Amino acid sequence: MPRTGRRAGDSGARAAILQAARHSFGTVGFRATTIRGVAREAAVDPALVHHYYGTKTALFAAALELPADPAVVVPQLLAGGVDGLGERLVTTFLRLWDAAPGHGPVLALLRSAVSDDAAAHALRETLVAAVLQPLTTATGAGDAEWRASLLASQMSGLLFARFVLRLEPLASASPEQVAAAVGPTVDRYLTGQVR
Amino acid sequence: MPRTGRRAGDSGARAAILQAARHSFGTVGFRATTIRGVAREAAVDPALVHHYYGTKTALFAAALELPADPAVVVPQLLAGGVDGLGERLVTTFLRLWDAAPGHGPVLALLRSAVSDDAAAHALRETLVAAVLQPLTTATGAGDAEWRASLLASQMSGLLFARFVLRLEPLASASPEQVAAAVGPTVDRYLTGQVR
Repeated sequence: MPRTGRRAGDSGARAAILQAARHSFGTVGFRATTIRGVAREAAVDPALVHHYYGTKTALFAAALELPADPAVVVPQLLAGGVDGLGERLVTTFLRLWDAAPGHGPVLALLRSAVSDDAAAHALRETLVAAVLQPLTTATGAGDAEWRASLLASQMSGLLFARFVLRLEPLASASPEQVAAAVGPTVDRYLTGQVR
Repeated sequence: MPRTGRRAGDSGARAAILQAARHSFGTVGFRATTIRGVAREAAVDPALVHHYYGTKTALFAAALELPADPAVVVPQLLAGGVDGLGERLVTTFLRLWDAAPGHGPVLALLRSAVSDDAAAHALRETLVAAVLQPLTTATGAGDAEWRASLLASQMSGLLFARFVLRLEPLASASPEQVAAAVGPTVDRYLTGQVR
């Protein structure tokens, strides 16, 4: 029950939650953002945030218009084991981003990060904390933070070269072709020699 | 002798040349930009452009505030042979960008590319044409364009993660530490299996 008397299902409540979430992720980052804090800022009951968005990572995905919830995708990737993980990660990643209409959210994400320190901070605290660190921690190869930052360098550059620079032949290559080339890089950053 | 009566050494002429160069690189790209065309737009004699900036790549480096002339750096890198080339490339690249005051030019480059199609076009036609393709062509491993675009994905992501996201521990690692981790990726994109 929303405390403010807003009815559940009110689209104004959804908008207020997303706005509060963007503000929180953008200022204090992913780790320090709480469902309770977002609910308070949006003047709704925390249960309503849970009802609409489920978990914090799902809320993050919605707030940043990520094409999928990292908390769903990451375990799916890991379920296949370490063998070929890099290729599966790149394929999944590109299929999701390719499907985003006009690549708008991808460009918005990169644009806000390069023009705004708070957005860069949010992206660092979120994508890395929600997606890359769980991967580098789960593989158990050690050096999880170092590996996550190396992984971030390859994955963000892939977005940049494919969607911003639209560099050929990379921009028109299928996700599978790119994954065959970039997958071994990701595998090495996840589990190989990186010191 | 400048045709417009501007005296050689006039700082107005230098500024006019750089402005014309940025406009040309930003609209028609690196390949289609000529010293003659830039001189015409700046209303100076082509000899003055040569006198101030030497070659087209040097003019490009000055116009985009690159920290070094690619036409000088690329042959130096190649002179050391293919062995360890990736590590030398990453070390050189990061030392140069690290030294740029406040990383301003790096951020300006990325910012303009993500917010402006013409700038993305210029960056594609310039950095890739002036730096990456000469490298992937020189090593003779074939697939020069494909390799150059893969290389661009790793190098641009390195800039993004280190200077925009300022992702630790990558952001504070020495160029040599980063090169030890990323060099093998660059080597594979330059000469390894990428299909």
